[in-house]
Amino acid sequence: MNELIYEQPLNEKIRSFLRLEYLAEQLEFNLKNDHQHACFYPLFSLWELCERCDYRNDVIKELDKHLNQLQKWHQLPDANHKHINTLIERVTEKRNDISQLFRLCEPLKNDRFLTTIRQRFSMPGASCNFDLPQLHFWLAKPWTERQQQYRVWIAHFMPLLESVKLLLELTRNSTEFESQTAESGFYQGNGDNLSLVRVRLEANPSSYPTISGNRNRFAIHFMDFGPQKHFHGNVKFELAACR
Amino acid sequence: MNELIYEQPLNEKIRSFLRLEYLAEQLEFNLKNDHQHACFYPLFSLWELCERCDYRNDVIKELDKHLNQLQKWHQLPDANHKHINTLIERVTEKRNDISQLFRLCEPLKNDRFLTTIRQRFSMPGASCNFDLPQLHFWLAKPWTERQQQYRVWIAHFMPLLESVKLLLELTRNSTEFESQTAESGFYQGNGDNLSLVRVRLEANPSSYPTISGNRNRFAIHFMDFGPQKHFHGNVKFELAACR
Repeated sequence: MNELIYEQPLNEKIRSFLRLEYLAEQLEFNLKNDHQHACFYPLFSLWELCERCDYRNDVIKELDKHLNQLQKWHQLPDANHKHINTLIERVTEKRNDISQLFRLCEPLKNDRFLTTIRQRFSMPGASCNFDLPQLHFWLAKPWTERQQQYRVWIAHFMPLLESVKLLLELTRNSTEFESQTAESGFYQGNGDNLSLVRVRLEANPSSYPTISGNRNRFAIHFMDFGPQKHFHGNVKFELAACR
Repeated sequence: MNELIYEQPLNEKIRSFLRLEYLAEQLEFNLKNDHQHACFYPLFSLWELCERCDYRNDVIKELDKHLNQLQKWHQLPDANHKHINTLIERVTEKRNDISQLFRLCEPLKNDRFLTTIRQRFSMPGASCNFDLPQLHFWLAKPWTERQQQYRVWIAHFMPLLESVKLLLELTRNSTEFESQTAESGFYQGNGDNLSLVRVRLEANPSSYPTISGNRNRFAIHFMDFGPQKHFHGNVKFELAACR
């Protein structure tokens, strides 16, 4: 098993962003290779989440907060001005892209094929040949054609997803990993205004961390994968508690 | 586009069997290659369907019906005895396998890993790293190990799925395809005690059939894929109305 990073959001905003990032990775995965109808799961999930929540405003606010902070840093005499300027440019670019994003799901809603198959996707096994002959027809098209179509569908979400990617990059880069040990599989930490806990593990064949917490403190319990119970050994790991 | 077969069940039994067959194909597809967490969709769908319905008794009844019919045919003087004997053996074997199948989902229900991740799979995007660290752990295992595990999970359903496959094979082989034309995209047919309508199309870039019907009659409407509306041209196709 390779090195693995486990993350736990400590506020609702980062929680949403991680969920969107996860779906963005799924879209990417389905764009690369033909996974048949499975490509629709992340598309419909993202569509549903974007209908339920207005991520746009949250993302704009968060980008503005980072811009503000970066501009403050830029005024410090010892700052790495070149690096900060690049970041300011990147954040500004994403902010422009997403500020032009209105009625995110509208183009998908107007697609009769997508709206029809979407209705059945949450039912178990309900995307059979006879449930959805149009899906059967679509899946028989050459993969390159479907891939191109998929690219068009997911393009609507890209300004949002790329902004989220940048925000998470800024959050993750705010803190470096430090070596720690969970004695008897348990670790407790604290901080100020935390937003994300990250746990990096070297090849470890038997346990995984479950993390809980809030902006001021957090706890990590290691679990034994086999019996799915608390792991009582000492676990060395690397920790980054990001603000 | 290759030749495509569209099917429509005309009774509830065949409808269930086609759904199970579809899920069996999905399991097979996910066993061949690593599709990450997507492999759980057909597994959980099948699990849910098997909890809701007692397919076992339906399948046994249907196998017995076929056995009965095959034995009648066997007594005819002109029958292909060798072929019929092979079929009788195959049906008998499946009947033995499935009659020993009790509490189909029990072993999966006792698997803590599966029961935990199953709960979240119907929520959009809810199988993130932080929602399910155990899934993150599992997905980092080598594919060969996960493949082996997947094989064990799906093995529980195999006696059911293989019986269904044989029943559908017998149903499909009961009738040969015949050339037909849908004038202005429409075709109406009838028969006696029908269970399955099959429409085979050669490369046809723009339309797909939607089929409806009951045991005595059925109708086929061809639809234009682009606008998702009725297709008004004449469509040549091959038809098999199976009993």
